[in-house]
Order: sequence, then C-alpha cells, then structure tokens
Amino acid sequence: MPQVKVIVTLKPSLLDAQGRVVKDALQNMGYSDVEQVRIGKYMELQVEGEGAELDAKVKEMCERLLVNPVIENYRYEVIG
Amino acid sequence: MPQVKVIVTLKPSLLDAQGRVVKDALQNMGYSDVEQVRIGKYMELQVEGEGAELDAKVKEMCERLLVNPVIENYRYEVIG
Repeated sequence: MPQVKVIVTLKPSLLDAQGRVVKDALQNMGYSDVEQVRIGKYMELQVEGEGAELDAKVKEMCERLLVNPVIENYRYEVIG
Repeated sequence: MPQVKVIVTLKPSLLDAQGRVVKDALQNMGYSDVEQVRIGKYMELQVEGEGAELDAKVKEMCERLLVNPVIENYRYEVIG
C-alpha cells in the first residue's frame, strides 16, 4: 500500500514562536551557531490508491483537514 | 549558511494516539482508504558550520534537546 509523507510548514512570513523558543534553548545550551529554527509537522499516511486519483485524494485531505492553508504550506511525496 | 532538515518520528512499536485521532477524523470525513496515520515533527535549522563537525553538532542537538531517544527516532539532511 502506498505511503504518503506530508510535511507542513508555517508560511515564511509568519513568526514561528515555537521555533524561536527552541532556538533560544539551543543557544542557551551553548549552540551559538544556530541562527534560526522553524518547526513544522510531519505525517506518514498509508492510503489505498494510486496515480492521479491518489494524488487528488491526498491534496484534498491536506486542504480539508491536515493543513491550515491560511498560515501553512505543505508538500508531500508518495512512496510505493 | 547550511540548512538542516530534521524529521522526528515515534518509534514504530509505540501507539500514536494523535495519529489515530487524525485517521479516525479522515475516515469520518469519508476517506475510508486511509489505513494508518502516524504523526511526527519536522524542524528546519539554519546552522553555521560544515562537514563532519556540523554533522556531529546536529546529532548532539537532536539527542540532547530535539528528540526523545527513548520513544523517538530521527533522521536529518544537510542542504547547502
């Protein structure tokens, strides 16, 4: 069954508060070379289907539930 | 400056409660072809450095802060 890997990221123009906290934590631990951290989401789905039909289904699921298109971008790849 | 993309996933043997909720939500929306969903974390870091030294630094940051090695696996790639 195909595996779909989805990466959701905050739009670059938006402040990533969670990433900012992680960056500060890393710098406080001595990793002063870390200039920026941005946090996203990662999802692995097992979905029955193939080809263009699977593609359309994944896009629809992303836009209806998995992603907030107002503030987030997404990309995905289908494996197998 | 190199960009490091880190993907953190829950170990396969562990129940992913969040993924289960997302799978149920998708099925309730009519996507009955979704068999499994597993949720992970995705991070993009801008870090000064290169080569083996950068590699070692990224691994150390993952193991000290970004990843819980008891329950999570991680992988990363360095770009640029």
